[in-house]
Amino acid sequence: MSLLVVGSVAFDAIETPFAKTDKIIGGAATYICLSASSFVDKIHLVSVVGGDFPKDTLELFQKKGIDLTGLEIKQNQKSFFWSGKYHKDLNSRDTLLTELNVLGDFQPKVPEKYQDCEFLMLGNLTPDIQRSVIQQLKTRPKLVVMDTMNFWMDVAWDSLLETLKLVDVLTINDEEARQLSGEFSLYKAALKIQSMGPRFVIIKKGEHGALIFHEEEYFFCPAYLSIDVIDPTGAGDTFAGGFIGYLYQLSKQRYITFEDMKAALVFGSVMASFCVEHLGPAGLYEIKLKDIHHRFDLFRKMVTI
Amino acid sequence: MSLLVVGSVAFDAIETPFAKTDKIIGGAATYICLSASSFVDKIHLVSVVGGDFPKDTLELFQKKGIDLTGLEIKQNQKSFFWSGKYHKDLNSRDTLLTELNVLGDFQPKVPEKYQDCEFLMLGNLTPDIQRSVIQQLKTRPKLVVMDTMNFWMDVAWDSLLETLKLVDVLTINDEEARQLSGEFSLYKAALKIQSMGPRFVIIKKGEHGALIFHEEEYFFCPAYLSIDVIDPTGAGDTFAGGFIGYLYQLSKQRYITFEDMKAALVFGSVMASFCVEHLGPAGLYEIKLKDIHHRFDLFRKMVTI
Repeated sequence: MSLLVVGSVAFDAIETPFAKTDKIIGGAATYICLSASSFVDKIHLVSVVGGDFPKDTLELFQKKGIDLTGLEIKQNQKSFFWSGKYHKDLNSRDTLLTELNVLGDFQPKVPEKYQDCEFLMLGNLTPDIQRSVIQQLKTRPKLVVMDTMNFWMDVAWDSLLETLKLVDVLTINDEEARQLSGEFSLYKAALKIQSMGPRFVIIKKGEHGALIFHEEEYFFCPAYLSIDVIDPTGAGDTFAGGFIGYLYQLSKQRYITFEDMKAALVFGSVMASFCVEHLGPAGLYEIKLKDIHHRFDLFRKMVTI
Repeated sequence: MSLLVVGSVAFDAIETPFAKTDKIIGGAATYICLSASSFVDKIHLVSVVGGDFPKDTLELFQKKGIDLTGLEIKQNQKSFFWSGKYHKDLNSRDTLLTELNVLGDFQPKVPEKYQDCEFLMLGNLTPDIQRSVIQQLKTRPKLVVMDTMNFWMDVAWDSLLETLKLVDVLTINDEEARQLSGEFSLYKAALKIQSMGPRFVIIKKGEHGALIFHEEEYFFCPAYLSIDVIDPTGAGDTFAGGFIGYLYQLSKQRYITFEDMKAALVFGSVMASFCVEHLGPAGLYEIKLKDIHHRFDLFRKMVTI
């Protein structure tokens, strides 16, 4: 049994109202894996980097229990690079630069040893690539979680719909949920998206929290209130990593219910709170389980009446 | 014992992506009073309208237990009028027209019979007017709740600070809390605003809910998820009316704690959900207590883990 994570491992250059970086480590799969590693003993990564990606980061990944057999290293090429600048409210950002580099012709290959995958997390990539990973697995995983973004709705609509049919959980932000469903009401949007395939829909609202919908039931998880938010980059992926990581851990003990998914949402939110308090993924390097559970308890207090 | 409400009673013309009205009933005090009337047996209103304000609405107010002794009717003048158009996301709006009319030289007078006020709700008005009401009361109320907006920070900063010193609870939106405190972190903002006077700070986040802070404690109340939001006008005032109304009712039975304030926040949120499902205040005319408690229970389920 393992968690398979597919997504970008990359460089980011970030500017927020509070800080500015040169090239630092980034990428959806980086945040997902680091976050999930607090819960999961066996993470399998499928991704691609260039020869410029630092060896010590790869060693860090391995120390965290992240298997890199499926990480292609194209020695003569450069890693994916994204640069962005956040607006004053931190809720929106402008992309300054996107260099696809190795990601431009990425064709993920799932190694044979990864076929024991029971949990699959598809980070934001083209829906074609996401689908090809599902199709390479001989046994369908028990839980497939997929992230996507508005860009694919604009340029790869049909492929996105194809892929949606194959997944259990879709994570998407509120604006994107409205675009995907054509419904303004998030409740109606979530029902409509369920009819497209995913039995569970998670609507992310950034600093305002997240909602999970299943049939006509739903649960609202506020974002944990961080005293200082430095950099929201990767928060959504960290959230997804905590979500699937917690469920993975739990599924080793027992059957998962919707109630467990609610708790998983909170663990995702807690992990994201550690992430946004530092630049890049630095906040995820040294998290202790007892700190995670401490915030989980604070969170419960914060919403309990 | 009574609840004193001060604020505008007015006309609005509203355009949302889903509906459009001509002149309909509006005004902060209208929403506050109608919302609070579900909980409070004795509401005293201080406000001003013109001769154009419909008699049947005033009769409706009286039927709801709202005393109009303090409502000045200036027969030869026109009522305050606001017209606005909401953006597609309903979270922001443009003011198209503001006609102060009778509100231009409003000097509130608190009638002698209103001196039994134990709860005071100051709707959004100039901080001078808000302060003059507090000063007219011979005995300080047990709980003074005040709403304000960014406009007064721009044009009446010193007066706003004077008034803030005199109140127990400030309701304010997230952007305004940041402006008032100079802090980006809502946690730090709330601590700083407490140091300006109010022992409790409620930060409203529209469709994303509200937070209440007291010393270093806080509670997050998501907005109840309405299936169809038609018109957010008055939601904040309806929320405030439910908040203070519930506390008023409870204080007749026992001493109020911070735990009670949390529940009051949820009742405020529930009342706002009834409001936004209709144009103007129509959703508040016929609410049954059992429907309020039903949504309260749904809300609890929605956040409980």
